[in-house]
Amino acid sequence: MSSIETSLEIIKRGAEEILLETELVEKLKKGRPLRIKAGFDPTAPDLHLGHTVLINKLRQFQELGHEVMFLIGDFTGMIGDPTGKNVTRKPLTRDDVIDNARTYEQQIFKILDPEKTLVMFNSSWMGEMSAADLIQLAARHTVARMLERDDFSKRYNGGQPIAIHEFLYPLIQGYDSVAMKADVELGGTDQKFNLLVGRELQKHYGQEPQVVLTMPILEGLDGVQKMSKSLNNYIGIADVPNEMFGKLMSVSDDLMWRYIELLSFEPLDVVRQWKQDVAGGRNPRDIKVGFAQEIIARFHSRAAAEAALADFEARFRQGAIPDDIPAISLEAPPEGLPVAQLLKLAGLVPSTSEALRQIAGGGVRLDSEKVSDKSLLITKGSTVVAQVGKRKYARVSLF
Amino acid sequence: MSSIETSLEIIKRGAEEILLETELVEKLKKGRPLRIKAGFDPTAPDLHLGHTVLINKLRQFQELGHEVMFLIGDFTGMIGDPTGKNVTRKPLTRDDVIDNARTYEQQIFKILDPEKTLVMFNSSWMGEMSAADLIQLAARHTVARMLERDDFSKRYNGGQPIAIHEFLYPLIQGYDSVAMKADVELGGTDQKFNLLVGRELQKHYGQEPQVVLTMPILEGLDGVQKMSKSLNNYIGIADVPNEMFGKLMSVSDDLMWRYIELLSFEPLDVVRQWKQDVAGGRNPRDIKVGFAQEIIARFHSRAAAEAALADFEARFRQGAIPDDIPAISLEAPPEGLPVAQLLKLAGLVPSTSEALRQIAGGGVRLDSEKVSDKSLLITKGSTVVAQVGKRKYARVSLF
Repeated sequence: MSSIETSLEIIKRGAEEILLETELVEKLKKGRPLRIKAGFDPTAPDLHLGHTVLINKLRQFQELGHEVMFLIGDFTGMIGDPTGKNVTRKPLTRDDVIDNARTYEQQIFKILDPEKTLVMFNSSWMGEMSAADLIQLAARHTVARMLERDDFSKRYNGGQPIAIHEFLYPLIQGYDSVAMKADVELGGTDQKFNLLVGRELQKHYGQEPQVVLTMPILEGLDGVQKMSKSLNNYIGIADVPNEMFGKLMSVSDDLMWRYIELLSFEPLDVVRQWKQDVAGGRNPRDIKVGFAQEIIARFHSRAAAEAALADFEARFRQGAIPDDIPAISLEAPPEGLPVAQLLKLAGLVPSTSEALRQIAGGGVRLDSEKVSDKSLLITKGSTVVAQVGKRKYARVSLF
Repeated sequence: MSSIETSLEIIKRGAEEILLETELVEKLKKGRPLRIKAGFDPTAPDLHLGHTVLINKLRQFQELGHEVMFLIGDFTGMIGDPTGKNVTRKPLTRDDVIDNARTYEQQIFKILDPEKTLVMFNSSWMGEMSAADLIQLAARHTVARMLERDDFSKRYNGGQPIAIHEFLYPLIQGYDSVAMKADVELGGTDQKFNLLVGRELQKHYGQEPQVVLTMPILEGLDGVQKMSKSLNNYIGIADVPNEMFGKLMSVSDDLMWRYIELLSFEPLDVVRQWKQDVAGGRNPRDIKVGFAQEIIARFHSRAAAEAALADFEARFRQGAIPDDIPAISLEAPPEGLPVAQLLKLAGLVPSTSEALRQIAGGGVRLDSEKVSDKSLLITKGSTVVAQVGKRKYARVSLF
């Protein structure tokens, strides 16, 4: 394979769409470092693995020798929500922006190479722009085309108001590509419309249009909905190692391959080998352990990854729960079933007082976690593996 | 009548709509000079009487002691047509703007009192405005409300493109009212939407909203279509006195009252008296003569008005066209009928060679104008009064 074909395979890994791939090939053929743009919200979130899908792709570009421009869209953030309807979107100050940029850097430089990353702020050029220039920019797009954007079209047809300045934001985002002379812009699939505006504006300003590369939105731990904090199906990059490990081990085997495609930096031929191994009978759990180690090492350290694995094995392997434990269903009151009651009703202890003694002596575990709270209530609708001492187990479902 | 009632009667003369009249009364009660705004295109047209309807209303405000702000919208004019689609709308330079302003002044100060007129340019404040400020402004209006404007709605529904900057122009026009602290804004009925945007923006910026006063669009000489140069149904304020006189005398009696309402400065009780006189049998022609004199005196001089009247009387009264002249219809070729042919076919001369001799001798008139061009073609579809010598007349319609 030529080096361009290799590059292309790496770039295409996990990507949803490339517009246009032929143009990307032409750009790669130039042999110079390409200017890779990705824009980020100035309200510095705590990043989770979903956010890193895009950042990982930036890293891949860096590894291929290209220059990453990490754009913080602070210009519009400093305007805030001019309608005043959204109280949570207060204008950011210059200090807020600098603080947020530091928070970003702390997080992204766990993935990106700081030497090959330009952190940029669109206030640098937009802050200088006059109203007259913005009018010129606004002349480059029609109302009808803007209303084709999915969310605008839904709101317009649904009678939800769209303030006119919202039509200006995609144009500003597109103009950023002009100011940055971007060769490639990365974004989520939901950003495709805006990324294409950048292409058009670049053409208008006499530049070669950027290639648009969209990355899919990562599914959360449930494997269905998008990963998000509010859905509580996320792995935060600041999560402690044990938590990260446990969450990654809990994903289904199918989702594991998806995560590996989008989150692992293992080369594609290694991943292909893993798939062959699993097809040949290897336990996917082994792959999952290795992948979880990689992620923890990235955001913490290799040592932390090993410690998390050791802890996990101590809990789940050495004190392994047998496969053939009895399954019991119990009716629980609305407020939940007290743990001592559960142990007695499941037949693991002869009485609740014996249950309480066992708890006091540290001999009771639920889902491998030691129970110390005697008044713990187990929620109606949940299923737990209850353990008393080394040998007595039951899988209890509460209804 | 109180002075406010008198003011109100003068202000309402010929006005289409006042929003809100109660607010206007409150403003008049303040007893201070009000700031009266009217905006004009920076591409200085040759004004015709249609344009003066608005300027006359400004003059009435001046006579009532108010301050007129004659706004030249040069800011958008200096941007030109950013889409580049309209080649006739090239960006104006600062020099163009100054030249055009002079042209305006030469024309408007025939009506307005220069001492009570502020000529303003919206580039003074819009030129200073940043892109960020314009975004704030754009947040004040929704896409849906803008699409309610008649012309936008027609274009959007008809699939005609609307560039996004076109949505910004009404906002800029509205912001002008904020910058100028306008108490009242005047405009044609077609400007109502934009004038109301000014009211809203003033409220948002903590100002008392301006009163909006719309004036009707003046009908042209045909009494049906709006007066416009391209429809050739106009009276230019630079027209020579005889031409102005002839055109004004040609309007119907109904249209005469309309013109008097919107164009004459005679007090309302004088106009009421005229109407009574005509109802009592006075020839409306006498009123028309006086009105034409007023208009010519305004744009030329009293002496020029008298000379035009004398000339008119010499042509039409002393050599009056009889009432009972024959009406003849003739078929004309597509390119029109040569005048000599027309005279022969109408029976006014025995031959075309006699017709040519009469033309050479100055004995031929069409609509009282002497004909000197022997090859003159009379347009298909027109009607002319043809005259040979002192006695021979025919009213000829060409089909």
